[in-house]
Amino acid sequence: MADTDTDQVKDTGTATPPAPSRRSLLAAGGAGLALGAAAAGGAVALTRSGADDDMQPAAETGGAVPFHGAHQAGIATPVQDRLHFAAFDVKTDDREAFVQLLKDWTEAAALMCEGRTVGDGAYGGLPEAPPDDTGEALGLKPSRLTLTIGFGPSFFDKHGKAFGVADKRPEALVELPKFPGDNLDKARSGGDLCVQACADDPQVAVHAIRNLARIGFGKVAIRWSQLGFGKTSSTTPDAQTPRNLFGFKDGTRNIAGTEKDRLAEHVWVGDSTWMNGGSYLVARRIRMNVETWDRTSLQEQEDVFGRDKREGAPVGKAKEHDQPFLKAMKPDAHVRLAHPDANHGATILRRGYSFTDGTDGLGRLDAGLFFLAYQKDVRKGFIPVQRSLAADALNEYIQHVGSAVFAVPPGVRDKNDWWGRGLFERTEA
Amino acid sequence: MADTDTDQVKDTGTATPPAPSRRSLLAAGGAGLALGAAAAGGAVALTRSGADDDMQPAAETGGAVPFHGAHQAGIATPVQDRLHFAAFDVKTDDREAFVQLLKDWTEAAALMCEGRTVGDGAYGGLPEAPPDDTGEALGLKPSRLTLTIGFGPSFFDKHGKAFGVADKRPEALVELPKFPGDNLDKARSGGDLCVQACADDPQVAVHAIRNLARIGFGKVAIRWSQLGFGKTSSTTPDAQTPRNLFGFKDGTRNIAGTEKDRLAEHVWVGDSTWMNGGSYLVARRIRMNVETWDRTSLQEQEDVFGRDKREGAPVGKAKEHDQPFLKAMKPDAHVRLAHPDANHGATILRRGYSFTDGTDGLGRLDAGLFFLAYQKDVRKGFIPVQRSLAADALNEYIQHVGSAVFAVPPGVRDKNDWWGRGLFERTEA
Repeated sequence: MADTDTDQVKDTGTATPPAPSRRSLLAAGGAGLALGAAAAGGAVALTRSGADDDMQPAAETGGAVPFHGAHQAGIATPVQDRLHFAAFDVKTDDREAFVQLLKDWTEAAALMCEGRTVGDGAYGGLPEAPPDDTGEALGLKPSRLTLTIGFGPSFFDKHGKAFGVADKRPEALVELPKFPGDNLDKARSGGDLCVQACADDPQVAVHAIRNLARIGFGKVAIRWSQLGFGKTSSTTPDAQTPRNLFGFKDGTRNIAGTEKDRLAEHVWVGDSTWMNGGSYLVARRIRMNVETWDRTSLQEQEDVFGRDKREGAPVGKAKEHDQPFLKAMKPDAHVRLAHPDANHGATILRRGYSFTDGTDGLGRLDAGLFFLAYQKDVRKGFIPVQRSLAADALNEYIQHVGSAVFAVPPGVRDKNDWWGRGLFERTEA
Repeated sequence: MADTDTDQVKDTGTATPPAPSRRSLLAAGGAGLALGAAAAGGAVALTRSGADDDMQPAAETGGAVPFHGAHQAGIATPVQDRLHFAAFDVKTDDREAFVQLLKDWTEAAALMCEGRTVGDGAYGGLPEAPPDDTGEALGLKPSRLTLTIGFGPSFFDKHGKAFGVADKRPEALVELPKFPGDNLDKARSGGDLCVQACADDPQVAVHAIRNLARIGFGKVAIRWSQLGFGKTSSTTPDAQTPRNLFGFKDGTRNIAGTEKDRLAEHVWVGDSTWMNGGSYLVARRIRMNVETWDRTSLQEQEDVFGRDKREGAPVGKAKEHDQPFLKAMKPDAHVRLAHPDANHGATILRRGYSFTDGTDGLGRLDAGLFFLAYQKDVRKGFIPVQRSLAADALNEYIQHVGSAVFAVPPGVRDKNDWWGRGLFERTEA
């Protein structure tokens, strides 16, 4: 996995080429440019192939989203159709080994997002050695794959001291409080690290997580993972919001990937720490009791959401994107309680996915919403909104069964940069 | 759910319009015509909409596969991208209620396969009543949805007497024997009924299963279900075989939906019973130990399958579809042991899907192959092939953890026909 660059970094530490500061990059307009490229859904269109093959042009929809940029892709990027999300626990306290893993992951991630195989691919290298790539995505398009890494509170609690980064734990990386109605399964909560893989082809997303897990063998282990089959959010302005498993459009006034002002205000961290240009991610596995919901009257369903089912329009309005008149809704309507106006302006960027994980043993579908939300500060984003939702009429039909929070660092700027470098490099210097 | 036709059938039984016999239908070329339409991937292209809306033209790939025909769609139909498979247990011994359910299911299935909502849809009907359709597929294309029903051995064991069909149990509907290495989870095995939903959009497949479960509330309950995210088989001649999670193409010489002779010889039941024109389905949940496989050398991987990884060509050959020379392979190579030449010609039609269901608690992906195979007689299809595979080198890397077998009745001929009618009607008469 190692190439000359990463060996250099690994061996000398301080010999790392000096990186432009986040401030100078932002001043040069780097953030806007990178965001624009990501929001456009990918300019590079390649056919997935061995690393030594020629690139072939492919359809726009199968194209590649640029991996490098001021922000990680997969946040403001137009929401892809499918998700594979994995939380990892770190199994080593060897700082050098862990930093090398972050470099190896970054290199592999950049290749996979371009639609290329990891290393020499699935059939390169020596016949006596395991292939560098597991091969199941050969022949598939890049499919707008994005890979987004995050660091959880337990990363700092358990490994911060050994890795020499304990004092770098962001103040904003707080554990979520217990909310009324939470019924969290520890086996589906938390995690030292996360990787969110989004792609238009699920096999591409699954391939990416699996290869990262393979590369990390012995250093990290998957704690839990979640497949999402259908997006429930849009970050594309004016697009129709996809329907959730209750048949409703929800979160229609999401932050769009092109709304630079709202992103700067609500999503991107802007400070002088290693998190500058990053964000905070809340992941919640929300079980939806679809069998109960399906026996509820249309009127009750519409009252619960505060929208009509057909158009997704707020109560008394005609169109999905019409400004809601909150006082026309029932006091416990979901839209009314979740709206920024009811939460001192708290606004989050949602990228949720529907899931179905078989059956729960009682003949009911284990189905629901895997809620993903990005924000500048969870203390001013998810936490106040979720507190407000304690009175939500929807709570009769849903239950939060998994929960995690992660500090998502800024983007990988170029081939010399790597995931989380800002967290480690100043300590190294 | 009931309309005039089904009410008539329900109330009088013998007033059912006389159905053309399977023999006369076959003689008229109905089987070939229906198959041709299904194999073409769907002539009708509609946008999913409320039942009372006008139909809109849509892209070919999102089109509809005809629901009616001599055979059920979803067998010879070109394999769709995604799967939601559900096994149900029957919770009633009331014959009339169960027959009504089959009629209601058939009516709903036909609508959903056309891309229409069930009944009055998600926002029709009375506001005081639950909507007839759960609504999450509104606005989505038909996506080549097929719904395929089957009856398991336990259906006859547990309910055959109450339903008056005990003597109709097909001789060929045998329980599968225990195979070496089987490690079956009862909670993921068996089932009185099954419905296989295949579609190019997973939300369409999930919507279909969920609505059938909803319609069946109180009469049937889901026993287990399985989501498949990537097809591993092709039934389209000369198409590239998709790769499984080991990165290999397997089952490359599958029966194509256009090979009428091979279908007649190996897949379709041809007799004078209610199963004439039907088939038998074997479903096996095969856990693949991807972490172990990924640390295996390329040479070992290719020896295990008896193919090269890049092209999928049999040992010593250049192309995927080249005729394999079995003796050039290791004696325990998968292709060698599974080949019809090693099994007295036993040939099955495969429609398998890759699955990923999170993590197994040991940090390993719970991933593998949900194997689906159709055949005229499991005693001459899956059973001898699987016995032969007892020596398979692949067994070191896989484990069968779920198993079921179903008698899949012939197709629903028209709007007066319903799923399983042949099983019930002669007893009624």
